[in-house]
Amino acid sequence: MPSAILLVVLGAAVAALLYAAVNFFRVKKLEEGTDRMKEIASAIRIGAKAFVNYELKLIVAVALIVAAVIALLVSWQAAIAFLLGAAMSECAGYVGMKIATYANVRVTNRARQTKNLGSTLKVAFRGGSVMGLCVGGFALLGIFIVYMVFGLGLGQIEDIVGKAHEAGRQNSILHLIVPAYNLPTTFTMTISGYALGCSIIALFNRVGGGIYTKAADMGADSVGKTEAHIPEDDPRNPATIADNVGDNVGDVAGLGSDLLESYVSAILSSAILAAELFAKNVFKNAELLRSMLYFPVVLAGVGIIACVLGIASLLVRKKLSDDPHKELNLATWISAGLAIVGAFALSYLFFGKYSGAEAGVPGVSVFDTVEFKAGWVSPAVTAAIGIVAGIVIGIIAEFYTSYDYRPTTLISEASVDGPALTITQGLALGMRSCMYPCAVLGIAIYSSYLVAGMYGIAIAALGMLSFVATTVSVDTYGPISDNAGGIAEMSFLDPEVRAITDKLDSVGNTTAAIGKGFAIGSAALATMSMMSSYLFATSKPVEDIVKGALDSISLNIIKPLTLAGAIIGAALPFMFSGMLIDAVAKAARKMVDEVRRQFAEIKGLLEGKVLPDYKTCIEISSQGALREMRTPAVIAIAFPVICGFLFGAEFVAGILLGATISAIMLAIFTGNAGGAWDNA
Amino acid sequence: MPSAILLVVLGAAVAALLYAAVNFFRVKKLEEGTDRMKEIASAIRIGAKAFVNYELKLIVAVALIVAAVIALLVSWQAAIAFLLGAAMSECAGYVGMKIATYANVRVTNRARQTKNLGSTLKVAFRGGSVMGLCVGGFALLGIFIVYMVFGLGLGQIEDIVGKAHEAGRQNSILHLIVPAYNLPTTFTMTISGYALGCSIIALFNRVGGGIYTKAADMGADSVGKTEAHIPEDDPRNPATIADNVGDNVGDVAGLGSDLLESYVSAILSSAILAAELFAKNVFKNAELLRSMLYFPVVLAGVGIIACVLGIASLLVRKKLSDDPHKELNLATWISAGLAIVGAFALSYLFFGKYSGAEAGVPGVSVFDTVEFKAGWVSPAVTAAIGIVAGIVIGIIAEFYTSYDYRPTTLISEASVDGPALTITQGLALGMRSCMYPCAVLGIAIYSSYLVAGMYGIAIAALGMLSFVATTVSVDTYGPISDNAGGIAEMSFLDPEVRAITDKLDSVGNTTAAIGKGFAIGSAALATMSMMSSYLFATSKPVEDIVKGALDSISLNIIKPLTLAGAIIGAALPFMFSGMLIDAVAKAARKMVDEVRRQFAEIKGLLEGKVLPDYKTCIEISSQGALREMRTPAVIAIAFPVICGFLFGAEFVAGILLGATISAIMLAIFTGNAGGAWDNA
Repeated sequence: MPSAILLVVLGAAVAALLYAAVNFFRVKKLEEGTDRMKEIASAIRIGAKAFVNYELKLIVAVALIVAAVIALLVSWQAAIAFLLGAAMSECAGYVGMKIATYANVRVTNRARQTKNLGSTLKVAFRGGSVMGLCVGGFALLGIFIVYMVFGLGLGQIEDIVGKAHEAGRQNSILHLIVPAYNLPTTFTMTISGYALGCSIIALFNRVGGGIYTKAADMGADSVGKTEAHIPEDDPRNPATIADNVGDNVGDVAGLGSDLLESYVSAILSSAILAAELFAKNVFKNAELLRSMLYFPVVLAGVGIIACVLGIASLLVRKKLSDDPHKELNLATWISAGLAIVGAFALSYLFFGKYSGAEAGVPGVSVFDTVEFKAGWVSPAVTAAIGIVAGIVIGIIAEFYTSYDYRPTTLISEASVDGPALTITQGLALGMRSCMYPCAVLGIAIYSSYLVAGMYGIAIAALGMLSFVATTVSVDTYGPISDNAGGIAEMSFLDPEVRAITDKLDSVGNTTAAIGKGFAIGSAALATMSMMSSYLFATSKPVEDIVKGALDSISLNIIKPLTLAGAIIGAALPFMFSGMLIDAVAKAARKMVDEVRRQFAEIKGLLEGKVLPDYKTCIEISSQGALREMRTPAVIAIAFPVICGFLFGAEFVAGILLGATISAIMLAIFTGNAGGAWDNA
Repeated sequence: MPSAILLVVLGAAVAALLYAAVNFFRVKKLEEGTDRMKEIASAIRIGAKAFVNYELKLIVAVALIVAAVIALLVSWQAAIAFLLGAAMSECAGYVGMKIATYANVRVTNRARQTKNLGSTLKVAFRGGSVMGLCVGGFALLGIFIVYMVFGLGLGQIEDIVGKAHEAGRQNSILHLIVPAYNLPTTFTMTISGYALGCSIIALFNRVGGGIYTKAADMGADSVGKTEAHIPEDDPRNPATIADNVGDNVGDVAGLGSDLLESYVSAILSSAILAAELFAKNVFKNAELLRSMLYFPVVLAGVGIIACVLGIASLLVRKKLSDDPHKELNLATWISAGLAIVGAFALSYLFFGKYSGAEAGVPGVSVFDTVEFKAGWVSPAVTAAIGIVAGIVIGIIAEFYTSYDYRPTTLISEASVDGPALTITQGLALGMRSCMYPCAVLGIAIYSSYLVAGMYGIAIAALGMLSFVATTVSVDTYGPISDNAGGIAEMSFLDPEVRAITDKLDSVGNTTAAIGKGFAIGSAALATMSMMSSYLFATSKPVEDIVKGALDSISLNIIKPLTLAGAIIGAALPFMFSGMLIDAVAKAARKMVDEVRRQFAEIKGLLEGKVLPDYKTCIEISSQGALREMRTPAVIAIAFPVICGFLFGAEFVAGILLGATISAIMLAIFTGNAGGAWDNA
């Protein structure tokens, strides 16, 4: 079975990457439009490329150091997997961003030439789909390689388990996050290294890109819109190119690597849970366990194929309707629907033979953690729970941030009574909006646990992310359209062109909010399941586990060290956000000063006779982002490791728990408040 | 021992209340000043009284219903204790607020007559001290009555334990928060009822008063300062009296009952822990356990005496210096120092005979939860840890919010670059400021646990609150000075008078931030120790406990139901805050409309020829607060109870944990961001 199955996974990854390549070149060969358009697009492209190249220097240096530490303290396999993960994530981000800087001007040009919304949408979505397909494709390709090269064969795991038995070190296959704890060279360690590699790229792309884009955005708007009263993206504003570069490095590359990280975590934490169960020899039924080990990876592969079909369903049609929202939703529904169908088919294929008594009854699966209470269909049901939960969280985000609904219009109404009330109303909305998504998460966690134990929670996280390629495509289409609008404005095109891109952009804002809801929900579930894998990996020896059933995976939060960890951990996301906002503000203030200086010193600028000096602004954003990202990045990497060394696993588990819970709140709060303000 | 000890407690409570009465009448007999001053002060007083009377109607109705539910589901003793707690808390808030509305104008008048800062400070602090002393005095008096009337004698507890043994229901003395779980009429239930009574008043005073004061404040400033460009507290602004009423009902009464609640929780959770240990018969040494049961209450009594002395040290002096900050700090240091000395003396008195081997060695105290690792001195050391932690958290709050330090000046600098950056910089500050207080809390929890187990954490919480009377006095002095400034402005007094009150007010802002830091830290510790008492009370029977040592007090956060509870619980403070901010915004918008209407319609108002219609604004704030407080109050009361019924104790414990952690973050974040904005 394994080899055939892995071919499916490889096939899915390759198909996604091929389709991405097709879309890449089909977008690239489109016309760019007028000279002025070419010039602006090229400025954006060069700015983005320069920043990514600078950033890459830093990333490569840090990644090599971390890899060396992993090689020294953990294993060379984990170090290589780490580098592989980093490379895959970087590839996805790089390719996705590159095509975004090609697609933007081509979207503008299509709008200019056809004046047709559907046709323009297609170009923008084709551009976005490259990022989505790369995220799915590269992530899965990497996992395939890790499975293939390191301990992929069940035989190898059996070998490891055998050796551990011989050495009497049954309990030593452990420690996901504090790798220095022990030195076992195992499958678990290696795939954890891969996930960590994806995380580090997400960290840099999100942090660096985020600082870049927000600094440019705030700098451009603070002076341009508020003081000089010129429209957004006006060519007279010197920060406007930097703003557009920011969309590409922050919203495209940042979001892509962020979701890629969650996606990989979700796949691997279910696999780790299965591998650990196997390694600890809790299961006597090696066949069932092997199925559990491969099911998540294959489910991910099937999900990617569902996404390819969903994306194609939009792109192959000759004529699209004038309602981008409807078209994008359709592609998402098709992907999600196919993923659910695929999950049920796979569930039957993998677990069908254990149907009824065997899989559902304690005895085959004595262990609470994986008991399939609903028979063979259980894994598919939990995947469906995850998918539905993701969609519901997205809809809630839309409700809170879309101008069609009451919460956001309330902010607009409040703005009549002054800026203080606008801000207050937005904060209130962000805070109130935390409850429903959390309730959905709580229900998803508990119900998937009821259906298939801890394994069910992991599969629910994976389900939510199974159509990640489509989600990312829809998300990436937003900043591409935003850029297209900017180019239209700066190229002095017909307002009608701008009207088309604005329509696309405003739909993009809503889809971005939904995408954020998805990202938060899936990150939360993935972290929870990662944490339970971690706790399981560090838990007591086999005998205790079997005896104690679920209680053996336990984190006693009332232990003072864990409690202290949870409180300190909860403060981490706040501190981290605070530092990043500080960094943004610092860079934005420099930008404001520069824009003001140019308005004051360059004669004829505000009259539109002379072009501003875009380059200095790009440099301010770049340098600000590169300088300010170092401290947070170092803290994020070093903090858990150092705490682990100093205070042990209990403290780290507390930190993880506290940080996860508070990060969920902060993410929903800021995400919805920001989205609502934007649309209000 | 008990009766003599309880006399000390009674003596301390009576001394505090007597001293409060002395200060009350000494303030009241001072002169009020000009007719105009009398008129304004009387308007504020009538407004505050009217609101409190309206609010009382609602409180009495809700309290009686809750009491009836408690009587039905728990016990009549708990119901009576509940009403007693509510009455004590309301008395403290009522008396403290009443004197604040007398003191404000007298502070103005003193400033007018003497033009002396020290002399004016004394009046303001004398007014504030009434609130502080009432909080300490009434809280302790109520506890004395509960101890006296219901199960205070050790004999009665022994009796209960005996009966439980007979009935084979050793494990049934339980359930702090979900009272319907079981129907034991015990000491634990009764004192929990008392604590709940204090909580319900804090809930209403904080919520109702908070909506009132912020709505009036925002309404007044949004139109007055920002649109009409008239100074704060300008008599031409119709919302200005409502604003001053708000200071009294929100900042005076609200803060007082808030700290009273934490204070009572801290005392009682240590007592509950001791009582439960005793009831479960873990200790064979009843004498030691009796000491543990009475120690917290007596420590509280000694703390109150320390506060009386600390407050008197300021008030008895004929001549105060011109530095209010120094004077207030001195009173606080004296109270804290005396409380620490008292804690060591009491520790010797109660545990001295167990010194060395007995108290420090497992065998006397087999149970991890209470083992005194540092011998008899352990409880005093943990109390000192709490006191020091409280002061450090206060200093951190001062660092982040005072204009003397970098974080706040950074906001001022950013404001040069526009409002967006001001807000951003403030948010960043609030977020970054979470880490240090949390680290201090974590260290305090872990180190006091190392010294004296779970009991140590409870005593640390109590230590932090032992000089609560002085903290509240210093806090209350702030709004009184604020009011005094308002009256000076509205009475057209010499600007010199306003300069004096402004100086007092600005010191008040900093002391308020420190007070908030204290309130957050102590609430966090008190909740943690309340939670561990709760878990202990609901834990397994004795045999398991002794065998499993600390592990028996356990909350496995990885259990899906608990985890779901923690996520949903973490969303609660956000939802709650969101609802309250919404309520404030709603009322503030009405206020804005009314102020605008008066500016537009009342001729000669802005020229200062005609006085505005203050009364309508007061009514808007009152009605807004009363209407909007209902939903949040009902949710806060009903949510945990309903969840307990539906999903059981595990889920509720998760909710409590999540809510506590996220409330700590939100409180520090908003507290410091707000304080810093205000001062910047």
